Amino acid sequence: MNIAVISIGNEVVKGRTVDSNSAEISSFLTSNGFNVAYHIACKDETDEICKSLKFLLDEVDVIITTGGLGPTMDDISIESISKCLRLPLEMNPHAVDILKTKYLSLKLELTEERLKMAKMPLGAEIIENKGGTAPGMFLKYDGKIIFSVPGVPREMRSMLPQILLNMGVSKKAYMSKEIRVNGIMESAIAPLIKEVFDVMNNGINIKSHPESFEFNNPVLIIEFYGYGDSQDDIENRINSTYKEFSQRVKNKFSLSI
Amino acid sequence: MNIAVISIGNEVVKGRTVDSNSAEISSFLTSNGFNVAYHIACKDETDEICKSLKFLLDEVDVIITTGGLGPTMDDISIESISKCLRLPLEMNPHAVDILKTKYLSLKLELTEERLKMAKMPLGAEIIENKGGTAPGMFLKYDGKIIFSVPGVPREMRSMLPQILLNMGVSKKAYMSKEIRVNGIMESAIAPLIKEVFDVMNNGINIKSHPESFEFNNPVLIIEFYGYGDSQDDIENRINSTYKEFSQRVKNKFSLSI
Repeated sequence: MNIAVISIGNEVVKGRTVDSNSAEISSFLTSNGFNVAYHIACKDETDEICKSLKFLLDEVDVIITTGGLGPTMDDISIESISKCLRLPLEMNPHAVDILKTKYLSLKLELTEERLKMAKMPLGAEIIENKGGTAPGMFLKYDGKIIFSVPGVPREMRSMLPQILLNMGVSKKAYMSKEIRVNGIMESAIAPLIKEVFDVMNNGINIKSHPESFEFNNPVLIIEFYGYGDSQDDIENRINSTYKEFSQRVKNKFSLSI
Repeated sequence: MNIAVISIGNEVVKGRTVDSNSAEISSFLTSNGFNVAYHIACKDETDEICKSLKFLLDEVDVIITTGGLGPTMDDISIESISKCLRLPLEMNPHAVDILKTKYLSLKLELTEERLKMAKMPLGAEIIENKGGTAPGMFLKYDGKIIFSVPGVPREMRSMLPQILLNMGVSKKAYMSKEIRVNGIMESAIAPLIKEVFDVMNNGINIKSHPESFEFNNPVLIIEFYGYGDSQDDIENRINSTYKEFSQRVKNKFSLSI
């Protein structure tokens, strides 16, 4: 099961805001055994949202949008998804109830802008926002699932458990192990990574992340990661890969890691 | 002229790494008067890189890829771009010269892994890496430009001036002004933002970025931004929009901003 995240907002594509949401959602889903294939960020424009959605509907099973769920005129994510999928946009009774409870308990009027946040595509199920106001939603479409959550990180975060609950069950065990290697250039360790990858041939990825200059006291983080049928399975494969790798580092560079 | 950034790396899509590169590249280009329309992050996989590239070639004029230019086996960005565009991958003499100078000056061998970083698509022009090793490149393709820069932020950053120099000249003056508004809910200020936007009708975007809870001492950053034919032009339009906005905030909420 492949997943994608769409981060919607002019502030993201113009670089005002670093898109930490996509990373947080992906990290949460990856550590829960899912596979994230793409992130897209686009403007608050129906056309761009629709193009992103259509591209991803061809590629993945689950799409999570973040951003554009609030009360202002540029918050058009839900409306754009409805238009794009040709699903009627309707006042969702569950979402209206939630907003009524929130605003009326503070003796605040349910204005047009506030009620706008309850307009959802036909068939949407509501995700309550425990970190703020705008409700989230999810929707089954053509055998796939589309989730929409707010862009404010605290609000998005509060909806992650509901995303997990409604993903379906096709997940695996995931594990990642990282070690730090000092004093070896990435270009010097590259052939050794390939050797271990080929010799083990067990589905474990080995990635080097350079943390400093290649030429001046190089520091590399070596990451071993992969998915397994069980926690034991993935742990065994990662540990045997790591053992093979550290043995070869010792032999080639006289360095224990 | 529309621009997109592709951030290539498993570590990005699985959420290990927050994609600050796309934000930094976009912020740099936006403040220089360009218009960034999309970010995509994808895995180090030829198929995913190619799908991202093809989607964006239909949508924008300039694509900047970041990541996957190093010496390890999973650094396949340049090779994948070549395959995708059906351009022969060749040893680029300029890139070979650069690598020779760097490694041989340290009496280090030009191994296969090191020389791999000099393989470029036919027609590529080289961007020197002043922050590290792997050269970047740019390429004219079907009336568009594709830039490829490394994923290590320091190395990517060192190439931004070269990107700017080779973008062509179709840029505008950009300006953004932000103010902080305390004590007004986003849902309360929403109609006022729409009023000002409609009344001014001058191409200036007004965006509210909530910084805290809607219900509990709300804090909003209100951002005014847009592009102009000159710095004076955009400054005048932003200032008159801001003036109109602050007047209405004063009238409606008895609050000076």
